[in-house]
Amino acid sequence: MTPSDPQPAAFDVVGIGNALVDVLTHEDDAFIAAHGLVKGAMTLIDTARAEALYAVMGVGVEVSGGSAANTVSGIASLGGKAAYIGRVHDDELGAVFAHDMRASGVAFRAAPAGGGPPTGRCLIVVTPDAQRTMNTYLGSSELFGPEHVDSELIASAQVTFLEGYLFDQPEAKEAYWKASRVAHDEGRRVSLTLSDTFCVERHRAEWRQLVADQVDILFANEAEALSLYEVDSFDEALDAARADVEVAIVTRGAAGSVVARGDEVVRIAAHPVEVVDTTGAGDLYAAGFLFGFTHGRSLGACGRLGSIAASAVLGHTGARPEVSLAHLIPPDGR
Amino acid sequence: MTPSDPQPAAFDVVGIGNALVDVLTHEDDAFIAAHGLVKGAMTLIDTARAEALYAVMGVGVEVSGGSAANTVSGIASLGGKAAYIGRVHDDELGAVFAHDMRASGVAFRAAPAGGGPPTGRCLIVVTPDAQRTMNTYLGSSELFGPEHVDSELIASAQVTFLEGYLFDQPEAKEAYWKASRVAHDEGRRVSLTLSDTFCVERHRAEWRQLVADQVDILFANEAEALSLYEVDSFDEALDAARADVEVAIVTRGAAGSVVARGDEVVRIAAHPVEVVDTTGAGDLYAAGFLFGFTHGRSLGACGRLGSIAASAVLGHTGARPEVSLAHLIPPDGR
Repeated sequence: MTPSDPQPAAFDVVGIGNALVDVLTHEDDAFIAAHGLVKGAMTLIDTARAEALYAVMGVGVEVSGGSAANTVSGIASLGGKAAYIGRVHDDELGAVFAHDMRASGVAFRAAPAGGGPPTGRCLIVVTPDAQRTMNTYLGSSELFGPEHVDSELIASAQVTFLEGYLFDQPEAKEAYWKASRVAHDEGRRVSLTLSDTFCVERHRAEWRQLVADQVDILFANEAEALSLYEVDSFDEALDAARADVEVAIVTRGAAGSVVARGDEVVRIAAHPVEVVDTTGAGDLYAAGFLFGFTHGRSLGACGRLGSIAASAVLGHTGARPEVSLAHLIPPDGR
Repeated sequence: MTPSDPQPAAFDVVGIGNALVDVLTHEDDAFIAAHGLVKGAMTLIDTARAEALYAVMGVGVEVSGGSAANTVSGIASLGGKAAYIGRVHDDELGAVFAHDMRASGVAFRAAPAGGGPPTGRCLIVVTPDAQRTMNTYLGSSELFGPEHVDSELIASAQVTFLEGYLFDQPEAKEAYWKASRVAHDEGRRVSLTLSDTFCVERHRAEWRQLVADQVDILFANEAEALSLYEVDSFDEALDAARADVEVAIVTRGAAGSVVARGDEVVRIAAHPVEVVDTTGAGDLYAAGFLFGFTHGRSLGACGRLGSIAASAVLGHTGARPEVSLAHLIPPDGR
């Protein structure tokens, strides 16, 4: 659906997702094999598995993460007005997550939970090929449900951005439907990133329904798009996506990205960078694109902003930019 | 004093210091001025100040730190046998610190404290000139005393390495005297790094006594050495130090370092590197030097190993090496 002209919005984008602190370590492929990790994917793990995996992992670096959280943090870094909805516990990692959200300029108003599991964390193994393999202990995020959807915040944002990762829990699925309806009732747009091929496979029918009924701006990488529509070629996937949504963006790693709106198709090259760690590159692509979109840029300019923002985290370990991204924005019209 | 030939040692080096998790952020000089920070120094802060400073700091990266902890972690990374004595609380940051010690191959056997303050942290502001300004909330480390000195561990290490930072608390001073006596009773060596000019000024007389009576291998940067001996020139400071200790090492940042043992004086150039963050450079210099020393290398080779190890953390944010340092060791004799 295409919303009517929205009212002036207090926020450009509000993100909803798993509030996580990333624990990143560098290991080789033998480590991936020895511990039965699924390379390049996001695997959900329980407490016992998290403890066992952490015990064998090397020295870690802790940085706030979470896919949609990275995206809104990137939007704020570009100078946009961003907010976040997610669930942390009242503990040290929860305090780190909340601090980093607010320090990056993102409005994050939810109080930490006093009971239940600790703040979630993602144990990330970065291999020498710069690929990241994620093992997520959801913790407090596992209990995210419709009651945590801040309708007032969603109504006040041009775009509500949903990450696919959160879609694994039934309560979270309800939360996404609720958030989408609140946004559309206010004439706002809903954006979704599919996040992970395995997540698409686990919930394909429900994804297809949500995308067709509620999503205006869809982000997917090539494998996720092929899986969602169960097709064999990139062109078929792109055609299916642009029939479903207002704007479809399919990313292809080093091969760049393709953005489609109706009959308009724009191909965008990847921004050249020496890749150290791919963690968060997709999240930052979405940040650049949505910053451009909510600031009236052309589709091509939005895609180029996506590539530039992604390149800003590909060159170091971790998913958040280390410096302000605002200086990377090209002049309007480019 | 010069120990007699020691028994075969289970460990090359055991370090004693403040067990801290570093929280690093990048800010400009205006931030340093606005919040009354002492640029380049280590300032002790209480709970209220730590909370207030964290609230205004930008997005952080959390990495295990602590000066002596960084040093022994570096020694393990070089392939040496290292152990650590320090105090953490039974909380999330304490678990991170203990994990990173063990993951780097350092023996760390102390159980976390069940009561008292939380695990200590160091709020580090890195400015565009790559200088680091440290603000330490000691937390659990503040209660370190002689009862935490693991005599068995100290007796089993060739060198006991003490960081100056811990010397701010009376109980910790007692602990250093106790550790030194245990080491010397076994014919081992004691090494000390002065850590910080302000710390030297606060406790100069006690430092002088400890250095003269107990220290075999002394690390200091130029400013610390001048302050300790209250002299005006580098040469006077070096002469005073080599009269006090078996081996004196004075570091001079980008100008390299000077190592003296009796009449033998060796000048070592800094290893060329593009400096991003100086946090931990002195700690890693000590790691390289002590690895060489405990492996029978010449003074010059020890100093060069120090420079090489320091360069491995100057090029990124944080005090611990991101990859194994063992491949950086030159062949014996160089």
